[in-house]
Amino acid sequence: MDTLSMKAMLADYGAETLKGIHNYIPDKEPRAYLYNLLAEYPNRGGKGFRPGLCIAACKAFGGKQDDASNSAVCLELLHNAFLIHDDVEDESFFRRNKPTLHQSTNTAIAINVGDAMQVLGLYPLFKNREVLGDKVAMQIFMEVQHMVTESVEGQAMELGWRKDNTANLMEADYLRMILKKTCWYTCIHPIRIGAIIGTKGRVNPEKFDRLGYFMGTSFQIQDDVLNLIADEEKYGKEIGGDILEGKRTLMLIHLMATCKPEELRTISKFLSLPIRQRKNADALEILELMHTYGSITHAKNTAQYLAGAALKEFYTIFSRLPDSEDKSLIENIIIYMIDREY
Amino acid sequence: MDTLSMKAMLADYGAETLKGIHNYIPDKEPRAYLYNLLAEYPNRGGKGFRPGLCIAACKAFGGKQDDASNSAVCLELLHNAFLIHDDVEDESFFRRNKPTLHQSTNTAIAINVGDAMQVLGLYPLFKNREVLGDKVAMQIFMEVQHMVTESVEGQAMELGWRKDNTANLMEADYLRMILKKTCWYTCIHPIRIGAIIGTKGRVNPEKFDRLGYFMGTSFQIQDDVLNLIADEEKYGKEIGGDILEGKRTLMLIHLMATCKPEELRTISKFLSLPIRQRKNADALEILELMHTYGSITHAKNTAQYLAGAALKEFYTIFSRLPDSEDKSLIENIIIYMIDREY
Repeated sequence: MDTLSMKAMLADYGAETLKGIHNYIPDKEPRAYLYNLLAEYPNRGGKGFRPGLCIAACKAFGGKQDDASNSAVCLELLHNAFLIHDDVEDESFFRRNKPTLHQSTNTAIAINVGDAMQVLGLYPLFKNREVLGDKVAMQIFMEVQHMVTESVEGQAMELGWRKDNTANLMEADYLRMILKKTCWYTCIHPIRIGAIIGTKGRVNPEKFDRLGYFMGTSFQIQDDVLNLIADEEKYGKEIGGDILEGKRTLMLIHLMATCKPEELRTISKFLSLPIRQRKNADALEILELMHTYGSITHAKNTAQYLAGAALKEFYTIFSRLPDSEDKSLIENIIIYMIDREY
Repeated sequence: MDTLSMKAMLADYGAETLKGIHNYIPDKEPRAYLYNLLAEYPNRGGKGFRPGLCIAACKAFGGKQDDASNSAVCLELLHNAFLIHDDVEDESFFRRNKPTLHQSTNTAIAINVGDAMQVLGLYPLFKNREVLGDKVAMQIFMEVQHMVTESVEGQAMELGWRKDNTANLMEADYLRMILKKTCWYTCIHPIRIGAIIGTKGRVNPEKFDRLGYFMGTSFQIQDDVLNLIADEEKYGKEIGGDILEGKRTLMLIHLMATCKPEELRTISKFLSLPIRQRKNADALEILELMHTYGSITHAKNTAQYLAGAALKEFYTIFSRLPDSEDKSLIENIIIYMIDREY
């Protein structure tokens, strides 16, 4: 399978999921500041990794696409809910080539739309009972509960570091944080849920945890790198926004551990300012230092290494399954995570 | 039953519920910006209407207190989640005599704690399955889903009015908004859920809707009145905060419908300013106008009238049940809603 075919499959699963989402959004008042926004936001697109991994894992384990569709809808709705709140929390300006929701409406409305998306995202899990039976449906509900819990824990770690202007972070702290904030959400639970559905609950879901951890960390590190060096239009967010937001990335942690004391003081001072007082020129200087000290190369290498570990895990778990397009899709998503440019 | 006994019973049910809440908050990292805040926030207290109504309805219908305790914990956790986000959305400064959570931490952390509280609030509903069986437990889950959905819809209406600086609202708009934002949450669903548990699912929950609507609107209007005229320390929020926040209350709607054109222009101009640019002196002037035009008296009368309607509904539904302390508690909560001073 080549990248184009992979993207076509992801786009197909994403389109099906988007159709499913629209079935869950009520056609009623209040429209202007609730249901219209709920209906429009998911149309912004995105790479569709979460529904894609869920559906692909389901099919690779012998299930039908329809059996996974409610769960894929839930994953995508909760992901959107999370993005909306994340953007408010980070004071971000752009998301998927458009102004963030709080920028195009206001903070209050964006928080409320995120809350509504979170409630709405649970309805498909009730629908699951009709399709998958009570036992498997409840198991998936608990998977989702765990997923959201891990995400808010990861978010709390990251927000706490920013609030305290924490300067002495280690790579292990960063990896623990993105395990919680990204990996469970983006990889581990989508694959676990798909496999549970595909096997009608007869798989031990924990066996996907390492795979999802390696995939998710690789993905997130690469995402952080792209935030600094990608083509802005392709990437869909403001380049360097992470530095301005004070995000503790692997690059920043590496830089702060390797730069000279006076540079460290400059960085710490920059991070101690409120977001809106930080200057673009200072962010660019920090970006320069990241190049100088090899922080970006270091992060890229780490992402590659983790993707390699993910591939190894993938082959260990999936080699016993019959070959299929969906098995191949998961493999190619991992390979793509190493190579993607946006 | 006198007011003191009513408060003692509410305090008792509230304390039991708070104990229950603490059983659901994990004792683990991340503490500083997540689990410590989740553990502390519900300790601020509150009147405990929601768990009180739920437990009392359960017992009045012949159920045991323990059977309702998971649901009461859920109601209280979701209520706290809602308050945290509501305070961010309204840019409020005080809640229950303390700085709001976003004031004492920051906006990002408060949003995330609210999200975490919302997830955590669902765990007791899964626990319900062990105590009440699958069918009743699922019925309660759907009650809660509906409750949260109505609340975000009501919130969207209110936030939309503020954003658009809507000036031509009618009393009916206000009542529809608080039906959604307050009544389902504070009265209708707590009573419905309690009665469902007490009857093991053998009651038609819709028969409580009118009662809860009358109670909830009476409560909310009285709450809005107290925001303008209560003793600040007893009330626990800043007095007149609602005017500064631009909240569309019954008093404001009445005033804007009855004042002179030039006064209406002054009010509209005040409301069109961003919250932080509105002056206290101007808010006080609007408060004066509310007194002058009888807006506050009108609202008080409306609250009394609605509480009377609630009492009538209560007697219609509950007179067939055997007398009990809990039946009496619900009656007295309604009476208290008319008379309370904070």
